[in-house]
Amino acid sequence: MTITMYDLAGAEVDRRFSPFCWRSKMALAHKGLAVETVPWRFTEKDTLPRPNRGRVPVIIDGDQVVHDSTAIADYLEERYPDRPSLFGGTGGRALTRFVQNWTETVLQTGLFRLVVLDIHRHCASQDKPYFRRSREESLSATLEDVVCDRQARLPEFRASLNPLRRTVERQDFVSGSSPAYADYVVFGAFQWARAISDFEVLPADDPVRAWRGRMLDLFDGLARRAPAYGD
Amino acid sequence: MTITMYDLAGAEVDRRFSPFCWRSKMALAHKGLAVETVPWRFTEKDTLPRPNRGRVPVIIDGDQVVHDSTAIADYLEERYPDRPSLFGGTGGRALTRFVQNWTETVLQTGLFRLVVLDIHRHCASQDKPYFRRSREESLSATLEDVVCDRQARLPEFRASLNPLRRTVERQDFVSGSSPAYADYVVFGAFQWARAISDFEVLPADDPVRAWRGRMLDLFDGLARRAPAYGD
Repeated sequence: MTITMYDLAGAEVDRRFSPFCWRSKMALAHKGLAVETVPWRFTEKDTLPRPNRGRVPVIIDGDQVVHDSTAIADYLEERYPDRPSLFGGTGGRALTRFVQNWTETVLQTGLFRLVVLDIHRHCASQDKPYFRRSREESLSATLEDVVCDRQARLPEFRASLNPLRRTVERQDFVSGSSPAYADYVVFGAFQWARAISDFEVLPADDPVRAWRGRMLDLFDGLARRAPAYGD
Repeated sequence: MTITMYDLAGAEVDRRFSPFCWRSKMALAHKGLAVETVPWRFTEKDTLPRPNRGRVPVIIDGDQVVHDSTAIADYLEERYPDRPSLFGGTGGRALTRFVQNWTETVLQTGLFRLVVLDIHRHCASQDKPYFRRSREESLSATLEDVVCDRQARLPEFRASLNPLRRTVERQDFVSGSSPAYADYVVFGAFQWARAISDFEVLPADDPVRAWRGRMLDLFDGLARRAPAYGD
């Protein structure tokens, strides 16, 4: 049975840019599960299946509703144990949390301050006031002020990727010789950025960019086929 | 049969401060293997069993000589598969590399710039000229200049621990509900700092400090019993 997933969309209904939704879409593909996505906007909190926390992804699998990308990954691993593992064992599951915490405190935070104005530009018109107000409040600055010196901040952002860079220099994927959920967590952040911004954050010769290319090739180019900028 | 391990010592023979040696000592204890350490100084490159790269740890296990902490962990996991796993599966082993790369590019780099002068102070007298010359060359500054503003740099260092902090806030160990090699990699860096410096890098209420306390309690207080500063 096809799984339904509520997926953040921009002004263009096909432009899907939530890093958390990308984690889940890649995880579903990894498990070989068919999914039908429902485009959703920030201001449509009432349309989500319950329970939810007013955010996507939310999936419906038969009579199960699961919300939150981390809960979805755990659910898929337990519900579909005979399909390829997302974690590669108990150790992998625990350490995936470290990768996720790095992604959320370093990578996504850094990217956000580079592309937040581009997100606003791609938001559906009904979402724009909500997005600007909520983000400017949390940033204590206008979106324009946050990004105005982004070119100058790029070297620092790139340096912050050193743990990832050294890893994918030495093995094909964060998870080793083949990709798993830790890769999808990190990749979700890059796919988010490239879905809404033509500001290329990775230099051409960066091993992180080569890894991103390998991720874009997965599942018959699932992420590469989606509307986005650059390679 | 007892394993022999060459272990970096300071001016006091019992002060063992190499982060890489601490990784291996904790890994040996995790596997329940008896070890006899041989104190070693930076300038005793000729005394190491071969093959080696002029650095410790080096272990001798029967007729096997293994050097480099990462190779030692892999060796122990393969040679003693029936003892508690250091990685918790293939996924865990691969993701441990990410934790290690974070430790080496963020944590150890940050700590080094806080405590490098304290390392010099604790070096054996025959090691001091070598240590100062090699480190000042790589830092392009005197050891005194590197640490002179360390108090001011502490907030930035503490912020760099966010991925670790968020992880050990939510689970007892980096590796989940019980410790494994990823914990020993991260812990080795903190044990290195506390072995040679009374400059406390963690505030009392930091979840990272609580985790460090749990690590110090392991194996009947193996690391807590060693000569060091603070808790």
